[in-house]
Amino acid sequence: MTTPLPTGSTIGILGGGQLGRMLSVAASRLGFKTVIFEPGGDCPASHVANYHLQASYDDEDALKRFAESVDVITYEFENIPTSALDILEQIKPIHPNREALRVSQDRLTEKTFLQGLGLTVAPFADIPDRAALDAALDTIGTPSILKTRRFGYDGKGQARLKSPEDAEQALADMKGAPAVLEGFVDFSLEISVIAARSQDGQVSAFDPGENVHEGGILRTTTVPAKVPARLQTDAVLMAGQILNALDYVGVMGLELFVTPGKLIVNEIAPRVHNSGHWTQNGCTVDQFEQHIRAVAGWPLGNGARHSDVVMENLIGDDMDRVPDLARDGACALHLYGKAEVKPGRKMGHVNRVTS
Amino acid sequence: MTTPLPTGSTIGILGGGQLGRMLSVAASRLGFKTVIFEPGGDCPASHVANYHLQASYDDEDALKRFAESVDVITYEFENIPTSALDILEQIKPIHPNREALRVSQDRLTEKTFLQGLGLTVAPFADIPDRAALDAALDTIGTPSILKTRRFGYDGKGQARLKSPEDAEQALADMKGAPAVLEGFVDFSLEISVIAARSQDGQVSAFDPGENVHEGGILRTTTVPAKVPARLQTDAVLMAGQILNALDYVGVMGLELFVTPGKLIVNEIAPRVHNSGHWTQNGCTVDQFEQHIRAVAGWPLGNGARHSDVVMENLIGDDMDRVPDLARDGACALHLYGKAEVKPGRKMGHVNRVTS
Repeated sequence: MTTPLPTGSTIGILGGGQLGRMLSVAASRLGFKTVIFEPGGDCPASHVANYHLQASYDDEDALKRFAESVDVITYEFENIPTSALDILEQIKPIHPNREALRVSQDRLTEKTFLQGLGLTVAPFADIPDRAALDAALDTIGTPSILKTRRFGYDGKGQARLKSPEDAEQALADMKGAPAVLEGFVDFSLEISVIAARSQDGQVSAFDPGENVHEGGILRTTTVPAKVPARLQTDAVLMAGQILNALDYVGVMGLELFVTPGKLIVNEIAPRVHNSGHWTQNGCTVDQFEQHIRAVAGWPLGNGARHSDVVMENLIGDDMDRVPDLARDGACALHLYGKAEVKPGRKMGHVNRVTS
Repeated sequence: MTTPLPTGSTIGILGGGQLGRMLSVAASRLGFKTVIFEPGGDCPASHVANYHLQASYDDEDALKRFAESVDVITYEFENIPTSALDILEQIKPIHPNREALRVSQDRLTEKTFLQGLGLTVAPFADIPDRAALDAALDTIGTPSILKTRRFGYDGKGQARLKSPEDAEQALADMKGAPAVLEGFVDFSLEISVIAARSQDGQVSAFDPGENVHEGGILRTTTVPAKVPARLQTDAVLMAGQILNALDYVGVMGLELFVTPGKLIVNEIAPRVHNSGHWTQNGCTVDQFEQHIRAVAGWPLGNGARHSDVVMENLIGDDMDRVPDLARDGACALHLYGKAEVKPGRKMGHVNRVTS
C-alpha cells in the first residue's frame, strides 16, 4: 500500500500556465500547498500558488531549491529538459515517471511504443532527411503531414503535404528538426479519453469527449461524444492499457481518431489535458484533482459524469465575449488571468452545461 | 449600468482564513488576482493568493499599501476595526458597504434594524449592566441567552441562563463587554439562506439549507431543507428585503429559526457563510464566485441547485476521517491547509452529493 501524502504537504509543479493554475487550485482543495517552477513572470499558476520560483530550466541551484522545498513533483507540460529531470529526480519523486515523458516527448518513440502495445496508429515513417521523406512518400503517399518529432503543440511544427511536390517546402518548415511523416487518416471525428492511474494501480477514466479543432487548436470538447458505446469502451480500455504499460501515475490525455470500425491513436499527453476541462463542471472530482490525488498517493475520486457539457476554448479575441458569457446562466467561466490577449493564445474556457 | 471590473484586475480580501481562501480560488476562475490582508502568517488564503500582505489592522502604512495595490476591497469576516475601514475606503471601494458592517457587527443594532424592516426576531434587550439584566429577565424570562454585542462567533461570547439565578455568572462570562439578552426560541429547525446582490441591484438566492449545530459550531448543512415551499419562499424574500434595505453588494448569510407558522431571524453575516459551502458541489456558480461577481460589478451567475448535498464540517480530529472520506465516491473534500489541528477548529468540510 502507498502512504498518502498528508494534507498540508507541498506539491511542486513544473510549468506555470493555465494547467498549472488549475492543478494548483485542485491541490488547495485537498489542503496541499504548491510551488510553481516557471521561467516566466506573472504566470497564470503563480496567482494561486503558495510560491513561484522564477528561474530557467538550466539553473541547477534553482532546480535543487525547488525540489528541496516540495514533497513530490509533477508537471503541466511534457517538454521538460532531460537535464532538469536528472537533477530533480535525485531529490524528490516525479510523477508521471520518466518513461512516460520519454515516450511522449518524441512522436517517433510514441508511435513505436503504441504499435508495440498492439494499438493502431496512422502510418508513419522516421524522416531524418530528404531521401527518407521521398522514400516515405512512396509508401505512405499524400495527403500526409510532416511533424517535428519533438516540441510540437497546437499545430506548431507541422506541414501538410497535398502532393509529393510539397516535400521540399514541408521539410524546410521543419527548420532542420528531426521529423516524422504521418499518413492521412480519414476519420469521422476525434475523441479523447482523460484517464488517471493511482500509485496503487487503480485506473479511472472520464467519459470520452468529442473534439473539434480549428487551425490546429482545440476549439470545443463535447461530452458525451456521439460515438457508439462499444467504441467508448474500447477507448477507455486502450487508455487503461497504456497507463498500465507505462506504470503511470497521474492523469493522461489520449487522443483518438474514430474511423469506420476502429479507433486510431493520434497521440498521448502525460498530463492533464485541454479536452478534459469539461470535468470541472461535469464531475464531482475533475481531472485536476484526479491528477493531484494520484501524484499524492491518494485514492482516485469519483469522476462519474453528473452533467453533459460543451467546453469551448476562449482564444485571443474570444475574450470580447466574456461579458455576454458571464450573463449566460448555462455557462461556467474559467479564465486564466493572462495579462495580454494574443491571436491564438488560450485565454480561458467556458463550460456550457447542457443537461 | 455598472462597469464590470476587467478580468486581470486585483481583488483585495481582508482576512486570510478558509473563506478568504475559497474566495481567492473563485476570483481566479474569473481571471482576477487577489491580495490577502491578514496579520497571521501561513494563513489558508495565502496559499492560493497572488500576494499576502502580513500586517496588523492598526498598521496604517500597510493598509494604505494594500488598498493601493488592489482595485476593489472585500472581506471574509465582519469584525474589521472601524479605524481600518476609515483608511481603506478613502482609497478604494469596499463591498459589502459600511452600513452592512455597522449593522452586523453589533447584535443590538442588527436586531433593531431587522425589527425596523418588520421582520421577526427573538425577544431581546440591551444589557449594559446588572440592573438592565434583572429588568430584562422580568420580561424575557428564562431560558434565555446572554450574548456579547460584538465579536461573537461559533458560540463564543455566549452564556445560557436556565433560571434567573444564572444571571451573575452569565454577566461575569461577558467579561465586561456590552451584551444583549435574547429570549429562547422554540424552533423546529434552523435554516439559512445565502443570497447575493449585484451592483446593479440584481438579487439571487441559493436554495435554503437546513443547519445542525453542535456546541455552538455548525456541524452540517443539508440541501434541500425539509421546510414547506411556502416558508422557503418567505426565507428567500426576507433575504432580498434585507439586501435591498442595505443597498448591499455581495453575498450575505441569513440564519432563520423555523417555528410553527413563521420564520424568526437569528442573525445575518455580511459575507460568504459556512452554511453555503454546499454550493461548491451543488451549483454551477457557488457562493464564492457569486460574491466575487457582485464585488467586481459583474452580473450574478447561475446559482440553481443541480445536486442535493449534505455539507459536513471537519472539525479538529474529524481530520482523522480524511483517508476514508477520500475513498468515498459520494464525497467532495475541501480542506483548508491549516498547519495545526485543534479541538473546535474548522479544518475543512466535505460535500456529500446525495442525488
